[in-house]
This record gives sequence, structure tokens and C-alpha cells, in this order.
Amino acid sequence: MKKGAKISNAVIRRLPRYRRYLGELQKKGVDKISSNEFSKLIGYTASQIRQDLNNFGGFGQQGYGYNVKDLHSEISGILGLKNKYRLVLVGAGNLGHAITNYIGNYRSGFAVEGIFEVNPEMIGQTLDGVPILDYDSMVEFIETRKTDIGIICTGKESAQEVADKLCFAGVKGIWNFAPVDLELPGHVAVENVHLSDSLYSLVYHINKMDSNK
Amino acid sequence: MKKGAKISNAVIRRLPRYRRYLGELQKKGVDKISSNEFSKLIGYTASQIRQDLNNFGGFGQQGYGYNVKDLHSEISGILGLKNKYRLVLVGAGNLGHAITNYIGNYRSGFAVEGIFEVNPEMIGQTLDGVPILDYDSMVEFIETRKTDIGIICTGKESAQEVADKLCFAGVKGIWNFAPVDLELPGHVAVENVHLSDSLYSLVYHINKMDSNK
Repeated sequence: MKKGAKISNAVIRRLPRYRRYLGELQKKGVDKISSNEFSKLIGYTASQIRQDLNNFGGFGQQGYGYNVKDLHSEISGILGLKNKYRLVLVGAGNLGHAITNYIGNYRSGFAVEGIFEVNPEMIGQTLDGVPILDYDSMVEFIETRKTDIGIICTGKESAQEVADKLCFAGVKGIWNFAPVDLELPGHVAVENVHLSDSLYSLVYHINKMDSNK
Repeated sequence: MKKGAKISNAVIRRLPRYRRYLGELQKKGVDKISSNEFSKLIGYTASQIRQDLNNFGGFGQQGYGYNVKDLHSEISGILGLKNKYRLVLVGAGNLGHAITNYIGNYRSGFAVEGIFEVNPEMIGQTLDGVPILDYDSMVEFIETRKTDIGIICTGKESAQEVADKLCFAGVKGIWNFAPVDLELPGHVAVENVHLSDSLYSLVYHINKMDSNK
């Protein structure tokens, strides 16, 4: 990666998608791909692809294309996916269960080490092998384990308070599924997953298609 | 909305966020807001806000700002949120449960009318009041009920087959939570929710912050 280069958020958001397609190509035994072929597959223009990947020093060779394995590995490195991450999750409801399950099954390098709850009936149980612990013990747990990321799967009402506590305890990032934008100190990264934004965007396109008929 | 105007996807993706903040402002009793005030709140630049909203004819008045209630209502109309939508969901696991619950509690105008499963032990039960039905009966159900949207909460392996069946049955849009990009006919809208993209983007920002220290 070019030293000190400032990469736009839009490019960062596209990198996981590049990586995903490159992973699929690798599985299919494809060694190299041109920006034109890649364009057909991933749905960005070839010029967009060249421009995006050029941000990181440019992996492509004229007349050869991209080396699938190397590019996949480079992007993994850029995103920080060669490291391991410790996670905690707050809120042992259905969504918390689904996310724990998803990370356990699909995301190597990420480990949910504890799930925190206020409901006394759930505390002491396990969820996909992860212990459900008392929310009051969370700060100490995070401090001891050096937890990197806190996942918020609570309702809207308690999300900000949970976020404050996670920051106080020292997480570096928050993955928030509660339908609210969190306010956080500048040194803590945050991704708010707003399911409604994606649903509404879908609905817009449905109506747009209808009106084009 | 300007007739025939082509609005970029990027703008469409920002509209739900505008709407969300306007909803919060309404709840707090705020009647009007300038693009500068709105900028501080929502985190886009004031010029971006003016440019975005100008796409739809421009609601702001010089020296007055935006009327919160009107703008909220206009954006709802643009997105198609003044209509009602019938949904079905495929896959009654934890994620399916979480999404059914989320729509039932938070999203008025959207109704999940049936959940489809292949697991015979689950068929016949209900999930948050929604019946769990045999996957084999899905096409007829959708044809009869004129279902608008199919939600895919199955594993990666069966997602494309489920999508094909939903399209065959006549849904207008698919909201896909399986970690795979679906291939669909052009007349069906699709939103792929890739949780990993958001997690990886978070991880990038965590590492970026670390390296800036």
C-alpha cells in the first residue's frame, strides 16, 4: 500500500466485495483475471476496477491481468484480515444468536468470546458454545481479554449506553445492529448496520421498475 | 420528483438515512432545519445535502431551511414507503427469526405473511405469529397472495435455488441475507446484505486508527 495514502471510504467498502469474488475464483482454480473479465463478474466497470486497485500500488500487469491469489492475499492484508480478532456480543436474542452463529461458522479469524445479557434466565447458558455472561461483568471481561470489537444486538433504547460501556472498557471498534446511529469517541471505529436502509433501497428499486413498465 | 430524472444509487442509499434523522427531529418537535444544522447532525457536508435533495426538485428555501415534516413525507413518498408490502421469508433459523421479529416490531407497512422451511419439525409452528409453511407450497402462496418481496435467510448453498423459485413465483424484489451474490432476471430488484463487508470495513478502520497512533 502506498505510504500515507488516504483511501476513500467508498473504495474501502468495495474491497470486501473484490476479495469475495477473488476467493470464489480461487476456489474454481482460476489463476489470473483481466480487469475486463473481472468487470463482467463483479459488476463494476473495468476502469473503476483499475482505479480502485491502483490505490494500493496497482497489482495488475498490462496484458496479463491480475494474479487472483496474490490480489486476494493483498486485499486481505490491506483490510487487516490476516490478524485475529476477539469479540464480545451484547444481547442474547435472536439477532445475537444469528450473528454469533454466523461468525462461528463463516468468519475465521474472528472469535466471539462472550455474550452479555441482563436477563437472569439466560445468564449461565451457552449459545453455540459461547458463554452467556452477566452484563455487569462485561467491563472487567473486556479489560482482561483485550477484546477488540463489541457487537451490539440490543434494542434501540439501550444501544448508546452499551456503546459507552464498551468504549470505557477499551474496545477498538463497535459493530452496531441496533437501529440507531451511535455517538462515539473519535478513537473508536464504528459500523452501524441499518437493515432498514437496505430494505428501503430495495423498495425504491421495485417501484422504479414498476414505473418503467 | 423531477420526471424521468435518473437518481444515482449513491443518492438512493443516502435517502433512508435522511429520512431516519428527519423522523428523529420530528419526534423532538423540530419544525425546520438548515442544511448546515442538518450537516452537523447527519455527518454529510451541507453542500452534499443540498445537492442530494435538489435531485428531487429541491425542498429547501433560501434563509429558511427545510421543513422537517414535509421533507420526511416527500422522502417517504420517493422511496415508496407510503405503500404496503407483502413479504415472505425463507429459512426459519435464528436469522429468519430475528428478521421476522425486526419487521414485525419496527417496520410498519411491511408484513411477513409466511415463513417457508424444509425442516418438517418446524413446519406447522409459528414464529412471532407468522405461520411456518412447507417450502414446497411457496410458489402457490406467492401467486395467490401477490407477494411483493422474498427474504432469503437460508444458507449460502441453497440461496440461488430459492431465489430462482421466488422469481418464478413472481416476487418483485429479493432481500438476500445469504452470503452470496444472486443472479436474477432484470425485472426483479435485489439487495444483498453482506454482513462480512461491513465487518471487514470496521476492521480496516480499526487498523487504520492503530497505525495513526
